[in-house]
Formats: sequence, structure tokens, C-alpha cells
Amino acid sequence: MQRKLVAVDWGTSSLRGVLINSEGIVLEKRAFPQGILQVAHGQFQHVFEQRFGDWMGADTLCLISGMAGSRQGWREAPYCPCPSGFEDIAQHLQWIEKDRMGIVPGLSTWNDDTPDVMRGEEIQIFGALAAQQIQTAQFVLPGTHSKWAQVLDGKIAAFKTFMTGEFYALLSQHSILAKTCLPDAPLKKEVFIDGVMQSQKSGGLLHHAFSARSLALFEKLNPAQSSSYISGLLIGEEIKSAKADRLDDSTPFLILGSGQLTQRYGFAMEALGLSATALPDEVTWTGLWALAHHLFPQDFI
Amino acid sequence: MQRKLVAVDWGTSSLRGVLINSEGIVLEKRAFPQGILQVAHGQFQHVFEQRFGDWMGADTLCLISGMAGSRQGWREAPYCPCPSGFEDIAQHLQWIEKDRMGIVPGLSTWNDDTPDVMRGEEIQIFGALAAQQIQTAQFVLPGTHSKWAQVLDGKIAAFKTFMTGEFYALLSQHSILAKTCLPDAPLKKEVFIDGVMQSQKSGGLLHHAFSARSLALFEKLNPAQSSSYISGLLIGEEIKSAKADRLDDSTPFLILGSGQLTQRYGFAMEALGLSATALPDEVTWTGLWALAHHLFPQDFI
Repeated sequence: MQRKLVAVDWGTSSLRGVLINSEGIVLEKRAFPQGILQVAHGQFQHVFEQRFGDWMGADTLCLISGMAGSRQGWREAPYCPCPSGFEDIAQHLQWIEKDRMGIVPGLSTWNDDTPDVMRGEEIQIFGALAAQQIQTAQFVLPGTHSKWAQVLDGKIAAFKTFMTGEFYALLSQHSILAKTCLPDAPLKKEVFIDGVMQSQKSGGLLHHAFSARSLALFEKLNPAQSSSYISGLLIGEEIKSAKADRLDDSTPFLILGSGQLTQRYGFAMEALGLSATALPDEVTWTGLWALAHHLFPQDFI
Repeated sequence: MQRKLVAVDWGTSSLRGVLINSEGIVLEKRAFPQGILQVAHGQFQHVFEQRFGDWMGADTLCLISGMAGSRQGWREAPYCPCPSGFEDIAQHLQWIEKDRMGIVPGLSTWNDDTPDVMRGEEIQIFGALAAQQIQTAQFVLPGTHSKWAQVLDGKIAAFKTFMTGEFYALLSQHSILAKTCLPDAPLKKEVFIDGVMQSQKSGGLLHHAFSARSLALFEKLNPAQSSSYISGLLIGEEIKSAKADRLDDSTPFLILGSGQLTQRYGFAMEALGLSATALPDEVTWTGLWALAHHLFPQDFI
């Protein structure tokens, strides 16, 4: 039987979906500003029908990743503990309708005594592994809550979250630094790298952040530059902290993310002597399609 | 001649003043929620007259420290560069009325190529030096923008700012962590120390901050505990970064600040094996009075 796949990424603030045929070709795409925080309790089925109901034929499979599986989402899909691979999340899909509509579980890990979690990034990572035909890799997924993950033998062995994007929003919009910062100014690469290099010096983030203020007082940083500098400070701090967990120096980092942010991480990692390659964002669809193939190898070929 | 001193601390968000007699005894105190941000351009003289005019006899001296000397304040008193001592700020007072009403300049320093600034903390430090009769010390001034300063031979040799208090407000009130945090809950010492110790592990602040989220998800941190944990993470991170600049292990740290915050820094520094002593907040008045004595030794005895 040839089935179609409706692949959905239902995040905190956005809802995206694609219709994919049995050979893995994307036929249609849709995106809505309707993340789980914008959906009232008990309305997930209704919103799904409204947005994607016309794609759901009798034989269609639907797989949903992201925050839809959180406690505040459509239905909770408990975290799979690391190390977890493709088969683990396939076995622990939360079926809303058996073999027809399932939610992908997120992953949890423990760093010392402290838990960490991801939802949605795991399917991007498995998608990238499938697309690259590799089993061992280290990933950087920039964002509001960036993730750095180590993959060994096809399993996500460990990962860490960094609140980099959220700190950027807080500092550039709500702190004293906002007075001298245009948060949406275009990237000034040189100033961005200044921030990256500053973050590597002693003093730590709490101190370096204040330098965006004092440099402005001394007229060495204008508002259009300040956003690039703060972004550099934060991304540099993230890389400084995260690179301690790297597998080895020979396994390059793969960056999964949207164009602009991926570019910034590429610049920063290059400046810090780390080898990194950017992959396109659409590994989410590759991952969900690979999962469909894994579940029903006869139907998705 | 015996003169009285009106000592004023005019900060960003508050205005405080005391009337002191020629022997250094505080006669009266006043405080108003009228920091420089609440005063319209050109209205500083008027607000001063309104609040303290009745204290200003013909012979009275007035000395003002804090943000009143900033570009947004009453009149700019340019920063004195480090190393700067008591005589340097005395020489660079910005007189609004010669020998009668002066604004104390702040201090600037350079850490590598990056400037740092203070306004108001310098007079607290000089006050503490006078009160303790010491010339060499290291200071911690906790707050929205904490300062760590090294004093050698009576001069502030260097200092660093840490945006710890501001980060606490941002994270506990405006970030995703705010959803599971009661920012004004009373201190839970054990949880606070957990945060301090977590901050010393690898991963950095951007990662550790997320642990307040994941611990809440795993029901290991409730909202009344979360504020103590986040406070511990931040103060621990500040101490971790700042202690690298300490003079030596034998010079104890002196903590200058308000009761509650001082106590937290004391707990954290003790947990991290650093010797620290808390001094009362009122070193501002001691400092301004010492400055009056330095300027007019005949009149303030």
C-alpha cells in the first residue's frame, strides 16, 4: 500500500506541517502562528482538523513532533531517557489514533543530578542522521533554547540546553542595555566577533553583559552595533561552555537551524577555531518521514 | 568654624539624605522614591530644595554621591580613572556652588580594552576604609549591578561590575522560568546553596539557568524554592567569575550592602570557602563625612 504522510511540527509558538507522498516528496507546506500556547485546552483536535483535516485521507499517516507532546500540549508523550535512538522513539510514540496519528516523544537526560529535556530537536537530529547517512555526530541546534547533542552509534547519548536566544531577548529588550540597543538591527559581523572574543575572557557573562553598557557610555558602541555585540557575547558564552562536552576534535559539528542564526553560529565557531557545517532546517520533515518508513516500511519507500 | 553636612545619595531610583553635625553625628534622615529617572530635566535644584532646603543653613556643606553626577543627572561629574583615592575624588568634585554644594565623581577602569564604571560605590568604599582604618582591602557591593573592587594603599586599583541583580529580575519575572517561580518568596537556604553549587559545575549560566526549568518539570523544585535556586545560581556565578581577581587569600572580603542581600552573599561565599565580613550599609554617610573632613578639616572634626 502507498500511504501519504502528514508531518507536523507543533511548537510553543508556531504550527507547521507538510504533506509528503509515499516516496518522500513534499507536496504541500503550511505554517500558522498557532503554537500550543495559542490553543485552548481541549481544542487541539479541532485546530488540527481545521488546519490539516483536508490532507487526512483514509490511509494517511500523521506524525507530530514538538511541544504538542508536552504536558501543556495535545497529549503528553513521556520523555525517552538518553541514550535513545530512532527505535526508542518509534516504540514510544503516543498514538492518538493507532497507526494513523501519533505524537513523537521528547528526550530527557541527566547531567550530574540535573535533568535536561528536548522536544522536537530529537526528530531534527534523527532526520539529519538519515539525510547524512551517519551514526556518530555532534549537533548544535541554535534557538531560544539552544541544544548541543552528542550522537554515538545512532543514539543521542547526551545533550545540554542553553537559554541563549531567551537571554538575548531579555537583555536587548528588557534590561538596562535596551536603552542603547536596536535589537533588530542587521548583523555587523566585526562587532559580533568582538562580542564573541570578549565572552572568552575572564569575568563571565554577568560581567561581560555590562560591557555593552559601559562601551555605550564611552561611545564605543552605538545602538545599531550593540545588538550584534550582545548576540556575540551570548553565542560566544554558549560555545565556550558547550564545547567542553565535545566528542573529539575530529568529529565536525553539524548546525541545524534557520539561515540567519546558523550563519551567526558559523561565524562564531570559525572565530573560535571549531569546525562546523550548517544543514538546512528541513531535517524535521526528513526525520518524520524516516520515522514513517521505520514504522511502515511497506508503505513509505 | 563648625559646619553641618547634608550628605545625599541620589541614585537611579531613590533619593536619600542625612543631616550630620560637625562631629559626624547623624541628626536626621530622609528617603524618597525620587531617583534621577523620576526627576524631569532641569528640575534637580528644585527637587533638592523641596526635600532638603530646610537643612541648608548659610554655612552648611552639601555633598552628593551617586547617579546625580551622571550625564542624565543634575550635573555630569566626569569619572576619575583607576587607580583613584580619596584625594582624587576630592580634587575632582563637581561644585554646583563652590565650597558649599558638590557632586562626587564616579570611577572608571579598564579591563583589557573594556571600560567599567561606578557611581556611588566609590564613596561607600572610602567610607568603609575610613571606618575600618585600613588601606588595603577587597570589597563586594551586591546589588542590581554588583561591584567587586580591589583597594591598594588607599586607592581603588580596579573593579568589575556584574549584572547579577538585574539578571535575577529578568529571569524570575520575565523569562520562561517566571512561570514556575515566586520571585519574592523568602530565602530557602538549602535550595539557595544547591544553586550556588550548581553554578560552579561546567555548563555555564546559560545552561544552568535552564535547570530551574527542567527541575520544575521533574517536580524537584517548586515555585517557592525556585527563586532561591535562581538567586543561588546567579550569586554563585558572580562569585565564581569575580574571585579570579582577588588580591590574595589572606585579605578578607568586605561585603557592603543591605541586610538580606549581604546575608545571601555571606552564605554563598562561606559555601565556596571564601572568608567574608559584612559591614553595614551606612558607610555612604561615613564616606561623605570623611570627604567633608578631608576638604575642610577645620570645620568637620
